[in-house]
Amino acid sequence: MYLRKGYEIKNGHLYAGGCDTVGLAKEHGTPLYVMDEDYIRGVCRQYNSALKDYGHGMICYASKAFSCKEIYRVAGSEGLGADVVSGGEILTAAAAGFPMDKVYFHGNNKQDAEIVLAIRHGVHAIVCDSLSEIEFLQKICEREKARVNVLVRLNPGIEAHTHNFVKTATADSKFGCSISDGTAMSAVKMILDAQNLIFKGFHSHIGSQIFEIEPYDLLIKAFTALALKVKEKLNADTDEFNLGGGFGVKYTDADKPLSYSDSIKTLCQKVADAVTAAGLKKPFIVFEPGRSIVAEAGLTLYTVGAVKDIKGIKKYVTVDGGMFENPRFALYRAQYSALLCNKAAEPAADKVTVAGKCCESGDIIVADTMLQKAERGDILSVLATGAYNFSMAGNYNRNPVPKVVMVKDGRSRLIVRGQTYEDMSSRDI
Amino acid sequence: MYLRKGYEIKNGHLYAGGCDTVGLAKEHGTPLYVMDEDYIRGVCRQYNSALKDYGHGMICYASKAFSCKEIYRVAGSEGLGADVVSGGEILTAAAAGFPMDKVYFHGNNKQDAEIVLAIRHGVHAIVCDSLSEIEFLQKICEREKARVNVLVRLNPGIEAHTHNFVKTATADSKFGCSISDGTAMSAVKMILDAQNLIFKGFHSHIGSQIFEIEPYDLLIKAFTALALKVKEKLNADTDEFNLGGGFGVKYTDADKPLSYSDSIKTLCQKVADAVTAAGLKKPFIVFEPGRSIVAEAGLTLYTVGAVKDIKGIKKYVTVDGGMFENPRFALYRAQYSALLCNKAAEPAADKVTVAGKCCESGDIIVADTMLQKAERGDILSVLATGAYNFSMAGNYNRNPVPKVVMVKDGRSRLIVRGQTYEDMSSRDI
Repeated sequence: MYLRKGYEIKNGHLYAGGCDTVGLAKEHGTPLYVMDEDYIRGVCRQYNSALKDYGHGMICYASKAFSCKEIYRVAGSEGLGADVVSGGEILTAAAAGFPMDKVYFHGNNKQDAEIVLAIRHGVHAIVCDSLSEIEFLQKICEREKARVNVLVRLNPGIEAHTHNFVKTATADSKFGCSISDGTAMSAVKMILDAQNLIFKGFHSHIGSQIFEIEPYDLLIKAFTALALKVKEKLNADTDEFNLGGGFGVKYTDADKPLSYSDSIKTLCQKVADAVTAAGLKKPFIVFEPGRSIVAEAGLTLYTVGAVKDIKGIKKYVTVDGGMFENPRFALYRAQYSALLCNKAAEPAADKVTVAGKCCESGDIIVADTMLQKAERGDILSVLATGAYNFSMAGNYNRNPVPKVVMVKDGRSRLIVRGQTYEDMSSRDI
Repeated sequence: MYLRKGYEIKNGHLYAGGCDTVGLAKEHGTPLYVMDEDYIRGVCRQYNSALKDYGHGMICYASKAFSCKEIYRVAGSEGLGADVVSGGEILTAAAAGFPMDKVYFHGNNKQDAEIVLAIRHGVHAIVCDSLSEIEFLQKICEREKARVNVLVRLNPGIEAHTHNFVKTATADSKFGCSISDGTAMSAVKMILDAQNLIFKGFHSHIGSQIFEIEPYDLLIKAFTALALKVKEKLNADTDEFNLGGGFGVKYTDADKPLSYSDSIKTLCQKVADAVTAAGLKKPFIVFEPGRSIVAEAGLTLYTVGAVKDIKGIKKYVTVDGGMFENPRFALYRAQYSALLCNKAAEPAADKVTVAGKCCESGDIIVADTMLQKAERGDILSVLATGAYNFSMAGNYNRNPVPKVVMVKDGRSRLIVRGQTYEDMSSRDI
């Protein structure tokens, strides 16, 4: 089984961030989200360092992957900006002391109140998704007596080779302004004409879990062509190319991620080449990785409950979590790697399906994976759960959202308290 | 479009429970979950009344469909029992003053602490899911000095014609003890041999959104055959047949639900006939409807934001909710009916897709539905959202879970407070 750098097997136990995961389970209880600070900082540094040659850009952490105060502190201390998508993320980042002038506010249907929050917290830019949004953004800015930087989210009609439901920039998408039907140009013109809006550039997000450079290359060509048109027809400069995120991570052996560092270097060079050829000035380049910063940093610890061997059909290993804290199998048939932390040195010779405790057949965490021989009480770990697990958690079956701990140098610290039973019913009248 | 009894269109607006939904949106804000008390009580009474002829049974509300204190009060006041699946549901029911001796505790992987809660709150029965659960339940009962009623959850290998991921009793299921491989008989024997456990009967749940009687009929035959075997081989009576839930509801015109009342009468008669033929005594019959009690009772109100017409491809109507408060399209490609509350009398002549505000392409609420012509600011209602919406809600993108109001006789009352931004980050360190 695939074990990334930073994980160790010592005395038969899995260690993460220098901590014995079996000990973590005992100390904090299960289910437990565990995040590895060094891994997060390591990826942030890879990205930042790769951007240095180009010299004029920023890495923004896409906080929807994993949003809580501590992650904004860590990303902020590494010099990253942030991509936020809601009033909740704006306020969480602000509460963590994040430099809000490095924040991009995204969303296909921002609410008035959210835009007001973004303006009042002084975000760097608002990424407009539609013509009607530009119209009411101008009105809000007038009311707020504010001038704001605006990027246009483009729908370039590019289809990254990825799961159907994580494509985001094909012609049929709820996101962005179509380049081909002229909406994108209209959007730029509207922004240039609006008194309180400052046109800064383009944004797009072409998908998730992408393992190839080509779709980004197409995106750069589309951005450059549009920037040239904007220069020629509207006599305006496009200062920023925000290329979004989408870099794939390794959930299982089958995933072959690109080198993040090489990708950034390659794409920056492609931008430089494209704009130079078009006679345009070099734009500020923004990347918005989320999953690649936190997914592999995380693992989830569970205690094994019932082990059910349906002869000749399937062996179910049930754990004390489920789709309330990791809905990605239920949503996307996502696959993960799993192992028994207290038997980590034993061979993974048993083919099993790891199921949760929710009253729903689709409540599966990992389907058909190889595992050490499981018994009630074992500590099971699912790897690479740092993205889109905690952030997508809910209270299905009135199960509480687990706590999150950060590990580093053999120590763990609580970064999000677990929900209590009282928390879940505290809003019930 | 399909509008159930109880909804009215007056002065061009949709009314629910006698309330103008446009007024509800204004008063409470959107997104807003609205539950209709009369509808809920009406279905409870249909079920209860249908059971009267048989005279020896109980309707238990499957609270995972929609769990909050008020629903336990309403179900309790209608004389229903309840099916709970977690410590959270046990405590919510208890806090609402629900008669806990009418509660069945289910789950494929109950935690020790949850079982202790169930015992201390005096639930009527614990439904055991596996042999190993029976073993540790006995140990917990010894420790707690308690004797508890136990049902065996059976896996009868019946496949109801329903969405693949809501099947629950096929041979390959994480739930229950297989009848065919002998596990079910072993379970009964273990319970009979265990000092602190009292064997009461069988439970099964054959699926969800079922529109036919046949799978239940097969289930009754399977229960009866096993009860006979238990009588003959183990000389024990099977006092209870808990046939679970699964009765389908009408989400769109395409759904043709059975009459709940006729179904209950038919199934009770089938049980009576089957046990009589087998020479067994008439069991106490339990049904556990959830969705059919609350789904059509609910609707969700939204405010329309951006309307995006991608020429020749699709028209997106975006709303201020999304998969954080209704993940059923993302999870199951579930379909719903929608209308504009403030234009309810106008023809639904526009084919649109209703999308949420989450930063994810799969964040769709209703795909390809007919709607009145939508503009920013319209109040949009999605119908039949009373089940598995609020109960599956989370904070994806750090969006807060909306409030829930109950409507009755032209008045609305808050039954669950909405989350605030502060609530969402209150556990962040």
